[in-house]
Amino acid sequence: MIRSTPVGPAYAGGVDQVGIDDVRAAGERVAGRVVRTPLLPYQGGGHAWLKPENLQPTGAFKLRGALNAMGVLAEANMAGRGVVSYSSGNHGRAVAWAARAYGVPAVVVMQDDSPAVKVEAAAALGAEVVLAPAPERESRAEALRAERGLALVPPFDHPDVIAGQGTVGLEIVEELPDVGTVLVPVSGGGLIAGIAVAVKTLRPQARVVAVEPELAGDLAQGLAAGRRVRWDHGRTGRTVADGLRAPAVGELTWQHIERLVDDAVTVGEDAILAAMADLARSARVVAEPSGAVATAALLTVPEIAVGRTVAVVSGGNVDPVLLADVLRSH
Amino acid sequence: MIRSTPVGPAYAGGVDQVGIDDVRAAGERVAGRVVRTPLLPYQGGGHAWLKPENLQPTGAFKLRGALNAMGVLAEANMAGRGVVSYSSGNHGRAVAWAARAYGVPAVVVMQDDSPAVKVEAAAALGAEVVLAPAPERESRAEALRAERGLALVPPFDHPDVIAGQGTVGLEIVEELPDVGTVLVPVSGGGLIAGIAVAVKTLRPQARVVAVEPELAGDLAQGLAAGRRVRWDHGRTGRTVADGLRAPAVGELTWQHIERLVDDAVTVGEDAILAAMADLARSARVVAEPSGAVATAALLTVPEIAVGRTVAVVSGGNVDPVLLADVLRSH
Repeated sequence: MIRSTPVGPAYAGGVDQVGIDDVRAAGERVAGRVVRTPLLPYQGGGHAWLKPENLQPTGAFKLRGALNAMGVLAEANMAGRGVVSYSSGNHGRAVAWAARAYGVPAVVVMQDDSPAVKVEAAAALGAEVVLAPAPERESRAEALRAERGLALVPPFDHPDVIAGQGTVGLEIVEELPDVGTVLVPVSGGGLIAGIAVAVKTLRPQARVVAVEPELAGDLAQGLAAGRRVRWDHGRTGRTVADGLRAPAVGELTWQHIERLVDDAVTVGEDAILAAMADLARSARVVAEPSGAVATAALLTVPEIAVGRTVAVVSGGNVDPVLLADVLRSH
Repeated sequence: MIRSTPVGPAYAGGVDQVGIDDVRAAGERVAGRVVRTPLLPYQGGGHAWLKPENLQPTGAFKLRGALNAMGVLAEANMAGRGVVSYSSGNHGRAVAWAARAYGVPAVVVMQDDSPAVKVEAAAALGAEVVLAPAPERESRAEALRAERGLALVPPFDHPDVIAGQGTVGLEIVEELPDVGTVLVPVSGGGLIAGIAVAVKTLRPQARVVAVEPELAGDLAQGLAAGRRVRWDHGRTGRTVADGLRAPAVGELTWQHIERLVDDAVTVGEDAILAAMADLARSARVVAEPSGAVATAALLTVPEIAVGRTVAVVSGGNVDPVLLADVLRSH
């Protein structure tokens, strides 16, 4: 599974790929609208830090990409009739928040097994929520877009979304200029693609490592094979990490990941739950299972943490009963 | 319980009281050693924010005062033989952390009903932990100081400690210059004294409001009576907020509070637990009961939140089983 990607001294950008200037522009666009999350010393301090994106007002990093995409649409006067998105939950909530911030209507297509907490949150922000089986979400959103003349804000495979998520990487390097390793949860790959653009451009010697549940390890397998692979929903649907069940990374995110990401590791289900418990106990933050996988890697595969290491805690929208169970059992 | 303190256009300082320059000096002393906690939008954003001091590496704001006091001792070459402190838990842990950071030995006298999580944390940082009944903690620490020639770092009634805690107020005004109300948990009064110095100097029209459990409402009663009052440990010991059981505010903290604090409110035990649950669910942070009282006031006495309001979440060191129970019951 170990894989080393040679990376040049600086990322030159490309016609279709996101570059550092796009991430910097996104940073200006979302400034004051997202929380600039601090790095939290972890495990006694000095070696490991957490980047707690669960502290965003919608509970996940997704707000960065949604606000950047919405900002770009608004600047082009293309957000007027509203936006539509599809999501396992956190992206939908983020688009609902961003649409409200820009005063435009939002429709969110969520999969019918999304946690109630995520569905209700999007509805509470004024979005129209449409439930659909996971494999049909994208086509349903596309149909709504065409019918109603909406703008589509996809969950990960879009340059404006990737650039927005990349602001996480920008902040990490600004606060910890000698960072050695960044551990990032992966589902569709938007977060790690954006972070990799920022981190590998500003600090090429730092390692960016993808973390997945073993039960949704399509990227780890794909990087080992040198090509994008797909795991069907029946397979990825088994992980407790409900935000990481995308069957594959996107085409655009894959192009970034294949070029910039250094390594990929997977973590077991129990390690994910144990990391959730430790984050609550020793870092005082609530992570959802998907948000805890990078921390789980830090705890169970410590050899991947070369130099000063940051684990991204990507989200915290967890059903309280699951959190209570985990606190009692781990 | 309502009380309005007239405050001049700017705080002039005094011989024995802490001034804004002391707080600013503390800010420079602790910079890079404490987390600069962000303001987190709460309740949908735009009106209320949280200042999550539970995200400090020791889990509470106490680290600010302990590091400032330790820094002052180190600058005066008075920390050599070590330090001793007494604490309900969070201050002891903070002194243990600060002593380790400065490479000096620490002794912490904790009360014998402190939660195990707090006792173990101080010990894990290398401090010698001495357990004593709550009413005897201070005299025991004083005896250890005299016997061993240690420097005493008291939990709240000391200008360097107050100035350190005041950095919370400095950061609030820097990030939210038009703040209208700051809600602050009170036990010995060090946190609110320091915050009041910073906030009332930099933004005199803002209101600083003390929040206590009803079961430990000595300051609310004292402000109404115009004199410091004392509730014995048997009485304050009934609240679930184990960090707020000090029988009275200090003499020095009282002088600051009496002059600068605008109002005091109390909250019931169930409101404290409900606030803990809401902080975990909707802000994704783990608060201990003591840390949740200002949020409880925001939720149950909303009329005290005049203008843009910040609730200080002062700590997050809670036994996981209590947190699990609260998530299931509230």
